[in-house]
Amino acid sequence: MFRLPVARLRQLASPLLRRGVLRTQTHAAEQTIKPTNGGKPFWTSGRVLLFTGLSGSATYLYGVNDSNSPFQFPWHKSTKPHYASKSDMEKAIDELRYVLGSDAISTDDEDLLMHGYSEWSSINIDQLPVAVAYPKSTEEVSQIAKVCHKYKVPMIPYSGGSSLEANFSAPYGGMSIDFSFMDQILSLHADDMDVIVQPSVPWMSLNEQIKDSGLFFPVDPGPSARIGGMVGTSCSGTNAVRYGTMKDWVVNLTVVLADGTIIKTRRRPRKSSAGYNLTNLFIGSEGTLGLVTEITLKLTVIPQETSVAVVTFPTIRDAAAAAAKVMRAGIPVAAMEIMDEVQMAVINKAGSTAKKWKEVPTMFFKFSGTKAGVQENVKLVKSIARAHKSGDFEFAIDADEQKTLWSARKESLWSMLALRKEGHEVWSTDVAVPLSRLPDIIEVSKKEMDDLGLFASILGHIGDGNFHESIMYNSKDPKERAAVEKCIKDMVDRALEMEGTCTGEHGVGLGKKDSLMKELGVDTINVMKNIKGALDPYWLMNPGKIMDLPA
Amino acid sequence: MFRLPVARLRQLASPLLRRGVLRTQTHAAEQTIKPTNGGKPFWTSGRVLLFTGLSGSATYLYGVNDSNSPFQFPWHKSTKPHYASKSDMEKAIDELRYVLGSDAISTDDEDLLMHGYSEWSSINIDQLPVAVAYPKSTEEVSQIAKVCHKYKVPMIPYSGGSSLEANFSAPYGGMSIDFSFMDQILSLHADDMDVIVQPSVPWMSLNEQIKDSGLFFPVDPGPSARIGGMVGTSCSGTNAVRYGTMKDWVVNLTVVLADGTIIKTRRRPRKSSAGYNLTNLFIGSEGTLGLVTEITLKLTVIPQETSVAVVTFPTIRDAAAAAAKVMRAGIPVAAMEIMDEVQMAVINKAGSTAKKWKEVPTMFFKFSGTKAGVQENVKLVKSIARAHKSGDFEFAIDADEQKTLWSARKESLWSMLALRKEGHEVWSTDVAVPLSRLPDIIEVSKKEMDDLGLFASILGHIGDGNFHESIMYNSKDPKERAAVEKCIKDMVDRALEMEGTCTGEHGVGLGKKDSLMKELGVDTINVMKNIKGALDPYWLMNPGKIMDLPA
Repeated sequence: MFRLPVARLRQLASPLLRRGVLRTQTHAAEQTIKPTNGGKPFWTSGRVLLFTGLSGSATYLYGVNDSNSPFQFPWHKSTKPHYASKSDMEKAIDELRYVLGSDAISTDDEDLLMHGYSEWSSINIDQLPVAVAYPKSTEEVSQIAKVCHKYKVPMIPYSGGSSLEANFSAPYGGMSIDFSFMDQILSLHADDMDVIVQPSVPWMSLNEQIKDSGLFFPVDPGPSARIGGMVGTSCSGTNAVRYGTMKDWVVNLTVVLADGTIIKTRRRPRKSSAGYNLTNLFIGSEGTLGLVTEITLKLTVIPQETSVAVVTFPTIRDAAAAAAKVMRAGIPVAAMEIMDEVQMAVINKAGSTAKKWKEVPTMFFKFSGTKAGVQENVKLVKSIARAHKSGDFEFAIDADEQKTLWSARKESLWSMLALRKEGHEVWSTDVAVPLSRLPDIIEVSKKEMDDLGLFASILGHIGDGNFHESIMYNSKDPKERAAVEKCIKDMVDRALEMEGTCTGEHGVGLGKKDSLMKELGVDTINVMKNIKGALDPYWLMNPGKIMDLPA
Repeated sequence: MFRLPVARLRQLASPLLRRGVLRTQTHAAEQTIKPTNGGKPFWTSGRVLLFTGLSGSATYLYGVNDSNSPFQFPWHKSTKPHYASKSDMEKAIDELRYVLGSDAISTDDEDLLMHGYSEWSSINIDQLPVAVAYPKSTEEVSQIAKVCHKYKVPMIPYSGGSSLEANFSAPYGGMSIDFSFMDQILSLHADDMDVIVQPSVPWMSLNEQIKDSGLFFPVDPGPSARIGGMVGTSCSGTNAVRYGTMKDWVVNLTVVLADGTIIKTRRRPRKSSAGYNLTNLFIGSEGTLGLVTEITLKLTVIPQETSVAVVTFPTIRDAAAAAAKVMRAGIPVAAMEIMDEVQMAVINKAGSTAKKWKEVPTMFFKFSGTKAGVQENVKLVKSIARAHKSGDFEFAIDADEQKTLWSARKESLWSMLALRKEGHEVWSTDVAVPLSRLPDIIEVSKKEMDDLGLFASILGHIGDGNFHESIMYNSKDPKERAAVEKCIKDMVDRALEMEGTCTGEHGVGLGKKDSLMKELGVDTINVMKNIKGALDPYWLMNPGKIMDLPA
C-alpha cells in the first residue's frame, strides 16, 4: 500500500528542499506537489497559490492567440489533463502487480528517489514518481501503458539516468518505467551493419560486446548513457563532427504508444523514403510521444588506425580559428574538442591521467582511418595549428594512452562533480551556434562566468558549434544559485541571438522549456503540441517535458 | 453534370465494402475522374463505383479496427474531407488574382496538363489540378494557403516535376503551387558551411553557383530535381553511400501550414536536441503536412581530388560480393553503383559517352578526398575487385571524362526514355533492402523482368542496398501493362519480405500507398494519419498521397 507522509517525504527530500528555491518551472505551482494531496492534480491544491509568484518568469502559454487557426492546439479550449487519483493510482499498481508479478512494480522510497532526483541535473523538484515499473519485454511495456492509460497515470521512461535537464523527473507524479531488465543486444547483423538492442543497453557495453565483428556504434555521449535515453534526447558526443548524431544512426524504433499500441517505424533497410520519418520524430521527443522498447542501430567499421593528439593554444580564440580552418579544409578529423584552462585544471586534479597538463586552452584531436589517411590528416592539421600559434602536438604513445586521454575528456563533467565541496552542485548546460559564432559565444560566456567569481569551465565540440558550460556553486546560497541561473540563461539567450539553439545534445527536459519557446516561437511549439496531442490525447507521456500542459 | 445521390452511392458501395474489395483508391477510382466533373471530389461521381471492383486486392482501410484506441484516426468517425465546389473554386481563384495579380494564377490547359501529368511517372490519372499558382515569396504562399483553406481547395506543391510516383498529381483537383519564381539562393554562409535557398533552386545549379566557396551540396538525385521536391521525397543519389540522404543535410525549413501559418523548424545551428525534430518530419512528407518555402542546407567541402573508375564483373552477384567487402572494410568510397548489361547497352545506344562499353554487369566507382587518401582507396578497392573476378579498372583520364562518365550513370533513366518506341512508356521504381540481401533481390528481380520478355534494366546504389528497376512496355496494351505492374509489385513485396522498404528514394506518391500500408501496417499508418490530421484537419495538403483520405 502506498502512502508517503509529508514528514517522511520532507526528510528524504531535505537535500532538495535545502536547495531552497524550486526551479525554473514556467509554473512555479508545480513545485508544491505533495503526494499526500491525495494524488489529485496539483492545481487543486490551495498551496499552489502561495508559490506562483516565485519564478517571475514570463508565461508562454500556448493558445494565447487570437487567431482562429486550427493550429491553436485543438484541445486547448477543452480538456486539461486529469491524472489518476490516489485510489486510481493504487488500483493501477495492483492491476500491474497482478499481471506482471508483484516485483514488477516498486513503491520503495529509495527507488522513488532514485527515479525522480538526479544530482547531475540542472534542476530538481520535490515531486517524485509514485511507483517504478520494471518491464521485461515490449509486451510488458504495452501492458503497463494500457493500465496507465486506463487510470490516467503519467508515464516517465528511465534508462541510464544520466540526463542533465530533469529529463526523467516526475512533476506530475505517475509511474517511472525503468528499462533495467531490457538491456540485451537482441540481434547483430554484421553483414547488414546493424544491430537490434533494447533500451537499457549502455553504448559503451554495446561496442565492447560487438567489437569482434569489426563494427562499432559511433555516437558517444556521457559514458553511462544507455540507448533509450540517447534516443530520447537525440544525443551526440565527441564523434559527432565525423559521424553525426543519434538521428543519423537509427534504422527503426519499436514504440509503445500511450494506449499500449505497439508500432514499428520501419523495417530494416539502410535508407527509406517511404512515408513519414517517424523514427526521427521519436528521436529527441524525450519520451513525450511513446516508450521506445527496441532500437535497430546502424553500425560502422572500426577504423584501422586511430591517433589522439593534445595541443595547447595561447587563447581559446586561436584554438577556435584553427578549428574553423580544419573544418573548411574538409580534413576528416574523427573528433576535435576544446577545453579551457579550468577544465584542464580539473583533469589534473582528478588525476585520471598519469601526466599533468598545462592549464591553458587545449584542443584534443582524434584522427582515424587508414594508416596513410591518418598520417596525412595529422600533417595537415599540424600545419594549420602552427599557423594559429599552437604549442607542440603531444601524441598518445599507444592505444592505452589514447584511451586514458580520451577518457579524461569524456569524464570532464564527472571529474568536476568529484571536486565538489560539501553543499556544492555543478550546473552543466550546453548550447549550439553556427560554426562561425562559436569563438564569440565562448569568449563572452567565459568572461561572464569569470565575473561570477565561481569555479566554472568550458568545453566544446568545436567542429559542431556546440559547447558546454559547467559552473560549481553553493546550492545552499540562493543568491549564488540565482546568479548562476541568470548567467546560464544569458548564455542561452546569446546563443539564440546568434541563430543557435538552446541545447545541442542534452535535450529540453524541464529546464529549458522557456528557452525552447523563445527559440522557436509559439506557432512552432503549437505544431509540436498538436502532434503530441494527436498521439497522446490524455497527455500521459512524460508530462511537463519539452512543452507545458494544456491549461 | 452527372451526380449520384449519396444514398444511392452507399447502396452501390455496400456490397463492395462488405466484400472488402474497395481498393485504397490508388488506381481504379482515380482513373475514372474526368476534369469535366467540374472539379468536384470524385466520390460524387457515380462512375467511381463501376471500377472499384477491378483490382481485387485486399482493403487496407484505416479505421477498420475494433479497439477503442484513440489512435484510430480521431476524425475517422467524423468528417470526410469536402473540397471546394466549382463556384468556390472560382471564388478562390478570383480572390487570389485580386491579392497576387492576375498572372499569379493560371487556368491555361497546357499549364494544367503539365502540372498534373508526368511522362516519367509510374502512374497517371485523368484528374488534373484546376489551377496553378505561381507565388513569389513565403508571404504569397501563405496568402494562397489562407484562401485555399477558406474555400477548402486542395494544394499540391510543384518544383522540379521529376518525381516518379505521381507525386505531384492532383487526384482531387485543387491548386498546384508551382515555385518556379522562388528559385533563388538567398544567403550563403561559407564560414558556417550552410546556405539558404528557395524551393525551386536546382541542386546542380546550386553547386555551380556556390563552387567558388569550395563548398558543395552532396545530395545528388535526378539531374533536373529541385530542392523543394528533394525535401518532399527525402531523396538521395549516388553520393549517399558516403554522404547520406536529404534528411542528413537540412538545418531548418520554413513551412507554410494548411491555414497559412508560417513556421520555422529551427534556427541555424549545425545540430540541436531542442524539441521535436520537425525538420525531419517535413522531409519526406511529400507536401502532405505543409508547403516548404525556404530551406537552410548544410554544405560540405569539395574534395581536393576525385577519381572515377569503371570495372566489369562476370555476374551481378560477383559485383555485389565485391561491393559488400568494400563496405565491410570501411573504405570510404564516394560512390559505388551497379548497372546491368541492359543498362550498359542503353548507355551505348544513347551515345552520351565517346566510348562504347562492354555490355556486362558493370560497377562505377567514385573516389574522393585527399590525393593520398584517394590513391590508397583505389588500391584497396582494386584488390577486392580482383578477388571477385573483376575485369580491368578503367579510370577517367581527366575531370571532363569523369563528368561524362558520371553523367552517363546519372542520366540512365532519361537515356532509356529516349529509346522509347511510339506508344511505349518506362516504368521506373526503386526499393531498398538490408545490405546483405541486395544480391538476392537483384538476381530474382532480374530473372522475373527477363521472363517478361520486355526491355528492362537494373541499376543500383549498391552501397545502400537500394536498386532501381526500369521496364519499357507498350502502354496501349493493357495486358502488357498489367504484367509489368505485377512484376513491380512482386518485386516490392520481395523487398518487404527481406525487411526492406517499398521505396529507398522516390517516395510513395500515389503509386506505392498499398505497399506502404503493407510495409508498416495499419497502426503505424494510423500514427501518420493522426499527425496529418493534427496539422491539416481539412486534409487539403496534397490529398491522396502517402495515405488515403478519411472515408
